Amino acid sequence: MSDLGWPLQRAVALHAGATAVIDGERRVSYGELARRVNALGNLAADRIGFLGANSLAHMECWLGVPAAGKVLVDLNYRLAPEELAFLVRDAGIELLIADPERRAVAETLGVELLEDYETVVAGPPVAPARIDEDALAAISYTGGTTGRPKGVMLSHRNLLANALHNLVATGHTADDRWLHVCPMFHVAGTSNVFACTWVGATQVILPRFEAAAVLAAIERERITHSVFVPTMLAMLLEASEGANVSTLRHLQYAASPIAPELQRRVLEWLPECDVVQFYGMTEAAPTVTQLTAADHRERPERLASMGAPVAGVQVEVRDVIDGVGELWVRGANVMLGYWNRPEATADALVDGWYRTGDLVRTDADGYLYMVDRAKDMIITGAENVYSVEVEAVLTAHEAVSEAAVFGVPDERWGEAVHAVVVASPGTTADELIAHCRSRIAGFKIPRAIDVRGEPLPKSGAGKLLKSTLREPFWAGRERRVS
Amino acid sequence: MSDLGWPLQRAVALHAGATAVIDGERRVSYGELARRVNALGNLAADRIGFLGANSLAHMECWLGVPAAGKVLVDLNYRLAPEELAFLVRDAGIELLIADPERRAVAETLGVELLEDYETVVAGPPVAPARIDEDALAAISYTGGTTGRPKGVMLSHRNLLANALHNLVATGHTADDRWLHVCPMFHVAGTSNVFACTWVGATQVILPRFEAAAVLAAIERERITHSVFVPTMLAMLLEASEGANVSTLRHLQYAASPIAPELQRRVLEWLPECDVVQFYGMTEAAPTVTQLTAADHRERPERLASMGAPVAGVQVEVRDVIDGVGELWVRGANVMLGYWNRPEATADALVDGWYRTGDLVRTDADGYLYMVDRAKDMIITGAENVYSVEVEAVLTAHEAVSEAAVFGVPDERWGEAVHAVVVASPGTTADELIAHCRSRIAGFKIPRAIDVRGEPLPKSGAGKLLKSTLREPFWAGRERRVS
Repeated sequence: MSDLGWPLQRAVALHAGATAVIDGERRVSYGELARRVNALGNLAADRIGFLGANSLAHMECWLGVPAAGKVLVDLNYRLAPEELAFLVRDAGIELLIADPERRAVAETLGVELLEDYETVVAGPPVAPARIDEDALAAISYTGGTTGRPKGVMLSHRNLLANALHNLVATGHTADDRWLHVCPMFHVAGTSNVFACTWVGATQVILPRFEAAAVLAAIERERITHSVFVPTMLAMLLEASEGANVSTLRHLQYAASPIAPELQRRVLEWLPECDVVQFYGMTEAAPTVTQLTAADHRERPERLASMGAPVAGVQVEVRDVIDGVGELWVRGANVMLGYWNRPEATADALVDGWYRTGDLVRTDADGYLYMVDRAKDMIITGAENVYSVEVEAVLTAHEAVSEAAVFGVPDERWGEAVHAVVVASPGTTADELIAHCRSRIAGFKIPRAIDVRGEPLPKSGAGKLLKSTLREPFWAGRERRVS
Repeated sequence: MSDLGWPLQRAVALHAGATAVIDGERRVSYGELARRVNALGNLAADRIGFLGANSLAHMECWLGVPAAGKVLVDLNYRLAPEELAFLVRDAGIELLIADPERRAVAETLGVELLEDYETVVAGPPVAPARIDEDALAAISYTGGTTGRPKGVMLSHRNLLANALHNLVATGHTADDRWLHVCPMFHVAGTSNVFACTWVGATQVILPRFEAAAVLAAIERERITHSVFVPTMLAMLLEASEGANVSTLRHLQYAASPIAPELQRRVLEWLPECDVVQFYGMTEAAPTVTQLTAADHRERPERLASMGAPVAGVQVEVRDVIDGVGELWVRGANVMLGYWNRPEATADALVDGWYRTGDLVRTDADGYLYMVDRAKDMIITGAENVYSVEVEAVLTAHEAVSEAAVFGVPDERWGEAVHAVVVASPGTTADELIAHCRSRIAGFKIPRAIDVRGEPLPKSGAGKLLKSTLREPFWAGRERRVS
């Protein structure tokens, strides 16, 4: 009944002449944006990949590829070529659109490349496809707990529901000037593309995060709204001297834990600005909870909370022991399942609910607090790194017999990837890091590897006691995992 | 996937101790409200009727009857007993809940009456039913174009979608203090019950509109938000001297055309308050378009517009001739169909779209302007009166051979019901009005009846030329039909 063509259709009906996108020197009205986007229906492929930084083209692919009845597979360009090649095969991408910077890598992936994007969007518009709301719109990859990335299948309805939930939670209007700097290949980035487009806001695009450039863009383009990950906020604060950010009215952070000190400094830096936290995951398209601006300013006891479910998303905390249970999520935003992974889907989706694997507790007011991630996952910057994936790469090295990978505190990244391995005498950390480099993305490579000759600590049942290895690093610190 | 139990579940999780409802002297927290509402699952009937003014019980039935997997049929208590009896039979109501004032009428309707509502809500809570989102939640009656009222079937998803659309369009928060004074048996009234409950707002209930009581309630309860019909606004203005309405931040009007002069006076009366117009219909649960606060204050050329579609609802203007076409509506809010009326449903729902019958034009900015109602309907106060229904009652009188019913301008009600009839000599208007009184609701009875001896004007094809009769009344006036 509803499809991802709607937001732009509304925007062009009501705001055809308004500036839709500012990408560097280029300014595109909603009318022009719609003409370009409608021409993407000419692409002759059913599953279309995108590999690149944020750009006008990147945003257009989100607005146009699903709306033409095709599936968009937006790839994390930080992945290693070997990882990308796996995703291209796993998703069955038939045509890949790569930005100029990723062209060379794209050519190695064994998939047809689109030659000239601008020629396509200059083509004749294609009439809107008739699309079932439950049809697959996008496959968005997340790290896999069993070592292999999983493609999250998001329907038109999933992404539209999330955009509506975000409109309620954020209160976007046509007067907003939104800065897209979080990568659009993450669903948190794309979510705001649909929400902003729906209300006809002006969307300013930066290709990547660079603190000085972000601060300059906020001032130059009079940015009112944006979302950052905590690591970015810390960098913005470091570079903020002399920057004029007085136009900011609403700033969100999401995707990884925030340090209380950073939270305090952000609130102090932007006394007139709404500061809001969102929590979610790709499987929920992604928004689940929100810690509101009022919570941040008026309820200091809630600052350690991940917030409360947004209207439209239902949560339950199940199997509670000593006040802690697993967070389950339900709503029109919850994914269709994992692409070609029926068993993983059956594990994750039970009776209409998505089990997050995150362990939480609830206070008397219904606010949620993250206690631990049930999945063995490190969040560094805002990237999720699954320990098991890195462990598999390390143990694939002929000298390594055992590997334990976990997060350790890091001033800048929140957590850093750390490894302890058992290897034959003479094996060096540098050698193992070089081994990783060709196989996994840079952000997944351990920052440090502790090479040992002795077996790692095990439980009586022979299970690796990773907590024993991890604890010394976190002594005296709270591991904030919201 | 989602059902009408959600809004209250969220409210009780987050705002259990907050005041949910103020109904006269009675104050009920969300925790208590949920306990009472959850006990409504004990009612042993599948289709449950409600007959009464706004009250705590009335609101609870909306929150609790559909959430228990049953269907609520909320009856317009202004209807005549004969009309009510028809609705009871048509909907197959098995159990009727009536407020004390309507008890005597309710006893004549040939349906089981609930004896003691308070005993039911004091009963044990019932676990939430597992409900399909497309299950029928409510049957809401509208006048019929063919003379017989039609039951609009609204699903859980329809009503939740509309509540979300209203949350986006209105921006409700937990801090709102909403006044419910429009009747809850109209879906426009119930819509705000779900939206307000979802965010945990405080909801003040008045049983009926009485200008002095409304102004007193606004001051006493520090009301921030409400919705009125234009007729009510005119009465509020008349009585406003000395009233303190400074807490009002957001005032909506809906359900009938507004006179430009009234619009101007409301904006002048409440210079600091958002004034917003909504347009919709029961079949759309009901919201379709919105004329925003900024439109009202900053775009005087838009004051005659019915606004633009809210995010989540799609419109198309079809079969356009000379710029005017029929408004079609699509969205998760659009009804399932008409109860037991497959032909009427097939006429109204085409390929996922609802055809409103309203004729509109669109300006360059995509704003909609009502040109005419394709359905022969009078809006008096905020009640819809279908001419054909009144004509059928008039021609049922033995002395009447022809009848034409239409709206004429009325200072207070926007339009008044007017009839021209051909009747045998000696028939008086009073006699015909008395005849109507026992058969149709007071608001449908013609304010004046012009009794003639000559046949009414017809086209060459013999079709009654109602426009010829109507025109003299509207000479020199614009018939505002937004």
